[in-house]
Amino acid sequence: MQGRAEATRRSLLEAAAHLFNERGYAGTSISDISELSGRTSGAVYFHYTSKEMLALAVVEAHFATWPQLIERHDSARLPALERLVRLSFAVARAFRDDIVVRAGARLWAERKTINETLPTPFVGWIATVRRLMNQARSNGELAPHVDPARDAHSVVCAFFGLHTVSDALQDRLGLVDQLADLWLLLLPSLQAGADPAGLVARARGPLPGADRTPVGAGRP
Amino acid sequence: MQGRAEATRRSLLEAAAHLFNERGYAGTSISDISELSGRTSGAVYFHYTSKEMLALAVVEAHFATWPQLIERHDSARLPALERLVRLSFAVARAFRDDIVVRAGARLWAERKTINETLPTPFVGWIATVRRLMNQARSNGELAPHVDPARDAHSVVCAFFGLHTVSDALQDRLGLVDQLADLWLLLLPSLQAGADPAGLVARARGPLPGADRTPVGAGRP
Repeated sequence: MQGRAEATRRSLLEAAAHLFNERGYAGTSISDISELSGRTSGAVYFHYTSKEMLALAVVEAHFATWPQLIERHDSARLPALERLVRLSFAVARAFRDDIVVRAGARLWAERKTINETLPTPFVGWIATVRRLMNQARSNGELAPHVDPARDAHSVVCAFFGLHTVSDALQDRLGLVDQLADLWLLLLPSLQAGADPAGLVARARGPLPGADRTPVGAGRP
Repeated sequence: MQGRAEATRRSLLEAAAHLFNERGYAGTSISDISELSGRTSGAVYFHYTSKEMLALAVVEAHFATWPQLIERHDSARLPALERLVRLSFAVARAFRDDIVVRAGARLWAERKTINETLPTPFVGWIATVRRLMNQARSNGELAPHVDPARDAHSVVCAFFGLHTVSDALQDRLGLVDQLADLWLLLLPSLQAGADPAGLVARARGPLPGADRTPVGAGRP
């Protein structure tokens, strides 16, 4: 029974994510979610209490996507800077393809219209990028002028700026190419003994020897 | 009479900008704007027809801020790359200090909840940055690997990413320092014969010999 309740919760969450992503928070009603999921409105309220709590659950599911992805990249036997660049491509693909990630991002952008406190993004990414840059520094991969404590913030801003702009110009399909362009600009500054084009070409592909299950596989 | 109607329109626009910036589009009513401006709701409707049209007017006033600022920087007798960096600091200060610019940015972020098509940002900035980078290329200021057609997009994304993140983390007061940090990361890649720290230190200040009137001066 536990498993079945969990499956119901998940199918409601995914239906909600589809609608929030398409129509936004204000444009989505509990009865829309009921209709798309094939469950009653009563079931939606039973599992999530309110539309606010459902939005919170989608944003939390968005955040829950990252630890596993980060861990998989942490454990790869590659230079730290290359793991960082690879991780960024994996995150960009999740933003392009994963409905829960996309819906969470849209809800977060609309946070001021949602009567529920959502978790704060960026802080965790700044810490993760700083950690990888510190490893790169220890390994002698970084140019001398690079300061991980300072530059991790700029790297995260540049990365999320791509999302803001590509969302605005409705060219999210170009996100992965735009990310490659961004690294071709950043890496000549970051890298000691730079080979930006080689690193970007390698990092766009999957992790060597990694589980190739795409993020969000199993989601409808 | 023309001048007085114009003054009324402007004072309504500024009252609306204050409220849109503080409370967002959904949280602001025509009667709030009437109250703050000391004019009747009838006057608001007479001059702007609807809350949607008032939001559109604020966003258009935001956009109208830039041509003059760009022109002032174009005419400075400085290397093109330094004009670009100076322009970015002027824009960042406008985002920090100018209520119409801030309100326009917030309304634009909330565009999916506003029943009126707003002008698209970023496109004009990408063209402006590309133009300045092309000048810098002609002057031999750019490193050989830099491609203005490609990299102008990344520079604009990185710049606006700062705004997204600083708005989220509520540290917009840190925007100018964060912009300096961003340039310290980007310039070693962009510049031929780099002196990033010197350029950033000079560019944070006003244009040499320029009119020092801050953007938004004369606004309440």
